[in-house]
Amino acid sequence: MQRGSDCLPLSHLDPCGSETFPPPQKHEVNSPGAPAGVSRMRQTVIFYLSYLLGVALSLACLVCVCVWSARWRGGFAWDGSGLQFNWHPVLMVAGLVVLYGNGAVLYRVPLTWGQNKLPWKLLHAALMLLALVLSVVGLCAVFGFHNANNIPNLYSLHSWIGIAATALFAMQWVAGLAVFLLPCSPTSLRKLLKPVHVWLGGGILSLSIAACISGINEKLFFVLKASAGGAQPYSALPPEALLANSLGVLIVAFGLVVFFILSNQKWQRPDSRPEELAYTPLLQEENE
Amino acid sequence: MQRGSDCLPLSHLDPCGSETFPPPQKHEVNSPGAPAGVSRMRQTVIFYLSYLLGVALSLACLVCVCVWSARWRGGFAWDGSGLQFNWHPVLMVAGLVVLYGNGAVLYRVPLTWGQNKLPWKLLHAALMLLALVLSVVGLCAVFGFHNANNIPNLYSLHSWIGIAATALFAMQWVAGLAVFLLPCSPTSLRKLLKPVHVWLGGGILSLSIAACISGINEKLFFVLKASAGGAQPYSALPPEALLANSLGVLIVAFGLVVFFILSNQKWQRPDSRPEELAYTPLLQEENE
Repeated sequence: MQRGSDCLPLSHLDPCGSETFPPPQKHEVNSPGAPAGVSRMRQTVIFYLSYLLGVALSLACLVCVCVWSARWRGGFAWDGSGLQFNWHPVLMVAGLVVLYGNGAVLYRVPLTWGQNKLPWKLLHAALMLLALVLSVVGLCAVFGFHNANNIPNLYSLHSWIGIAATALFAMQWVAGLAVFLLPCSPTSLRKLLKPVHVWLGGGILSLSIAACISGINEKLFFVLKASAGGAQPYSALPPEALLANSLGVLIVAFGLVVFFILSNQKWQRPDSRPEELAYTPLLQEENE
Repeated sequence: MQRGSDCLPLSHLDPCGSETFPPPQKHEVNSPGAPAGVSRMRQTVIFYLSYLLGVALSLACLVCVCVWSARWRGGFAWDGSGLQFNWHPVLMVAGLVVLYGNGAVLYRVPLTWGQNKLPWKLLHAALMLLALVLSVVGLCAVFGFHNANNIPNLYSLHSWIGIAATALFAMQWVAGLAVFLLPCSPTSLRKLLKPVHVWLGGGILSLSIAACISGINEKLFFVLKASAGGAQPYSALPPEALLANSLGVLIVAFGLVVFFILSNQKWQRPDSRPEELAYTPLLQEENE
């Protein structure tokens, strides 16, 4: 079987190691049973349906977490009270899940493939920086609330996983900047660290989701308790519990869509596809 | 650059669609800078180090969860008491995390590559079936405990995520048996569903880890409360909390190692590597 990649021209590197690349149609195979155009169109349709599903789930997560904090938990403030805590779920979901997940799939959008990679690298880095800043502010919200109310920090497993996710994210961002954006980093180092960057990126998203699930679960046990005033406990699944449980399900569904998009090798930017890399030794110097 | 796969002979299918395959060394590239043997040896060493780390983390998870239930929570019984509940964390960690994760990386062990795939498919299916059975018994333990003590089932987000993981796992196992083991399933269907099987397999492991983290977190808030008897609350991080938090960290570390092994395309069984599949249209019939 003839492969499209056999006749690919070499990509051209700019000083930052970013490539311009021919349009993706040159990568398709012409098989008698399924013309390249039809196969490509089908892949593009499935990609954009998945991408739109991811965007819709992102918005649903944001709406759910904002409604939960604003409508059921009393709204927002920055005064050390429970209203300051309410920023925590909103900012962590917005930063560590929604922005992070959307930043992770940026390179998969076919519209970006025919262009120089550098602007998309910069946008990827900018989205991730914004995600990191939101996450750090979200951590400040909960630390401030704890300190103002003499509640110890960082004892629960939820907090251990959440702080590990944010710390790894910060390390990943700094390493990504140094290795993949600075012009002075050698291509051999880029090639060596790219699979690690991709793997750790997925791992951080998994950690973030585990932190969100455990955090929502913990918060609902804290605040939904039977009382003389007639409040319903978590176990009776009052409307707030249904909303927050649904937020957890939406976060998991969003994560699965992101991993689905990342796992499909046909949706990789052509100059990042594994058949371009698969049989080169790990340390061999080559265009990244 | 010449690719090793350009000179590969076609694999030979047995009636079950399982392949015998030439030994992996035929897939290595000979580059002037790094001889194929050295590169292959380095990859093999890194793989086995990762695999051994995964096995060590598996054992550490099992020891931790058993010590937690047996030493700190009073041991095991099947009488509707809290001792019946203690089977729940042990069986879910053993089934949904440890056995599941080890079953998922089975095909990556280079020792299996030179042989017919069918026995390894059967072992993969058997490990996953054992994992599923342990998980279902683990769910029975908690349902029985709840029912005996008039505690509602399936209200917490932890339970929603855990039951979703187990249900998806059961569906995945049945679909895997029907599509990848039964001789009558067409190769076009195998080719279509293999990426979905791999993606959903990773997704189920992520769900399992999120369920474990939220479950450990929830249990520690339930049982570690300050009391007149001098018991320490979770927030004081008594030894039991340190042990169970460490169990959570070990589970996450094990998951990261499993995803690291699965993400490295050089460690895929040669007849499953993406460059063997990348440019074939999704529905084109071909040897799986």
